[in-house]
Amino acid sequence: MSEVFDETVTEELSAYGRARRHAMLMGGAALAATATAGLLSEKVRAGTVGKAEKPVEFLFAIYPNGTLLDFAGPNEILSRIPNTNVRFASPAGGLVTLEKGVVFGPTEKLSDIDKVDVICVPGALDLSAMMKPEILTHIRKLSETAQYVTSVCTGSIILAAAGVLKGRRSACHWAFLNVLKEYGAIPDPARIVKDGRFMSGGGVTAGIDFGVAIAAELRGAQAAQEVQLLVQYDPQPPFHAGNPLEAPPNVRDAVYKMLPGSEHGLMRPIL
Amino acid sequence: MSEVFDETVTEELSAYGRARRHAMLMGGAALAATATAGLLSEKVRAGTVGKAEKPVEFLFAIYPNGTLLDFAGPNEILSRIPNTNVRFASPAGGLVTLEKGVVFGPTEKLSDIDKVDVICVPGALDLSAMMKPEILTHIRKLSETAQYVTSVCTGSIILAAAGVLKGRRSACHWAFLNVLKEYGAIPDPARIVKDGRFMSGGGVTAGIDFGVAIAAELRGAQAAQEVQLLVQYDPQPPFHAGNPLEAPPNVRDAVYKMLPGSEHGLMRPIL
Repeated sequence: MSEVFDETVTEELSAYGRARRHAMLMGGAALAATATAGLLSEKVRAGTVGKAEKPVEFLFAIYPNGTLLDFAGPNEILSRIPNTNVRFASPAGGLVTLEKGVVFGPTEKLSDIDKVDVICVPGALDLSAMMKPEILTHIRKLSETAQYVTSVCTGSIILAAAGVLKGRRSACHWAFLNVLKEYGAIPDPARIVKDGRFMSGGGVTAGIDFGVAIAAELRGAQAAQEVQLLVQYDPQPPFHAGNPLEAPPNVRDAVYKMLPGSEHGLMRPIL
Repeated sequence: MSEVFDETVTEELSAYGRARRHAMLMGGAALAATATAGLLSEKVRAGTVGKAEKPVEFLFAIYPNGTLLDFAGPNEILSRIPNTNVRFASPAGGLVTLEKGVVFGPTEKLSDIDKVDVICVPGALDLSAMMKPEILTHIRKLSETAQYVTSVCTGSIILAAAGVLKGRRSACHWAFLNVLKEYGAIPDPARIVKDGRFMSGGGVTAGIDFGVAIAAELRGAQAAQEVQLLVQYDPQPPFHAGNPLEAPPNVRDAVYKMLPGSEHGLMRPIL
C-alpha cells in the first residue's frame, strides 16, 4: 500500500471508485453522473445555467517551463463552451517556452489583468517562474475577486504559496500532494476537488476531467456534456496504471524511485 | 441507436466495453490490460522492447488550424518515454497558428524531413493546409519508410487522402468516421486501432489513449505504464457522454445538429 494517502482518504477514494465503476457497469449516463454528483452544485445538476448571457472570462495563468497538457486539456473543453472567453497570461506576456522546449502563446502580461471570472493555474515540475513575490501577490489579487479559483496538477502549490488556499481542500499531482500542507492547504487525493469557489484537478491529465467539471459549473451540465461528446472524451487507457494505489508494484516502485519523496506525496517541485 | 456505426462494429465495440469494464471491476492491472491486449503485439505484452538502444524519431506533422489537444495529449506521453525523440514539423516550419488562434512551435519544415521512425498526423475540422498535392505526396513518402504510420482524430483523413490507408482499418473522430471510406480506408469506431504498422486514435482526447498504446509498442509496456503514472492518467469523466452510443439523447442530438452529417459519421471536414 502506498503511503501517499492517509487511511481515511484512501477509504473515500475507494468508495468513489466503487461508485464510479458501478455507474459504468449500469451503463446509464445519469447513473455515471451520480459518481461525481456530490462535486457539482445544485444549479449544475438542474442544468439551469447553460444560457447565462454575460461571457465568462476564464484565465489560464501559464509560465516558462510549465507542462503543456495541464492547460491544453481543460482549454480544449473551455474554448468550446458557449459564451466563455478563454485567455492566457504569463509573467512576461508574449510567447512562453514550456517544459521540453515547446513554445505556446500568445499570452497577455499577467500584471496587466485586474479581474477575471475564473483563474486557473496549471502545474509543472519547475514552478520557479511563478514563485516571485510580485507574481504571487498578483495571483492572490486575482483570486480574491474571481468567481472560481482553480488549478491543475502542481498549480495548486502556486495558489497555496500565494496564500489563497489556507484551510481549503485541494487536489494536486499525487507525487506532490502533501507539499500543500506546508502552505496550510488540505491535500485531497481526489481527481477533481471542489471546496466552495475553489476547484482543482489532480496530475496533468486530470485537467480534462477538471475542465468538464468546471465547464458544467459555469455553463451547465448540458453544455459540458455536448463538449465532452465533441472531443470524444470516452477514455479507455490501455493499461490500469494511472494512480499509485492501482499501478502494478514494479511500475509504481520505478516511479517512486524516479521522483524522490513521491511515495509520501512529498516530491519537491522546483520553487 | 446512432447510425454512425454499422451493427457488426457496434457488437465489437460493446464486447470491448464489456471486457474493459469487467477488467476494471476486477481491479487488477494485468486484467485491465487484457481488454486491449489484442491490440498490442507479442513483444509489447512480453515487455521486451523497453531498453532498445537506437532513439525512436517520432514526428508530429502539424499544420495551421489544427487542434492542439490532438497532439498535446500523445506528446505528453511520448516526450517522457525513454530514448524517444519527439519532433514537430509543419508545411511552412516555424510557429504554427492552430485552431482558436493559439500559437505552437517551433516546428521543422515538413519537406526538409526525409525519414522518421513514426509519423503521427493529428486532426482538426479544417484540414485544408495539409490537402495540397505536394504536402500529401510528402506525407506518403514519409509513410512508406516509417516503422509506424499513425494519426489522431481526423488526421486519418489526411493519411487516407495521401493514399496510404487503402484497405487499412483506421480510427477517426466519430463524427467524421465514414469519410474514410471515400479514400478506400476501412472506418473502425474503436478508440485505438492497430492494423499492422498503422495505428490510430479516435477523436481529440483519444490521442492520450493512443499515446500510451504506441509508447508501449515502441518502448514496452513497463515504460508506457510508468509514464501513465507520471501523468496520473486515471481518467474519471464527471459525465458519461463521450461517445454517441452512450451520451444522453438530448446531448447527442444537440451535437448531431451542431455537426451536420455526424449522425451518419459523415460530417465534412474543410478540405
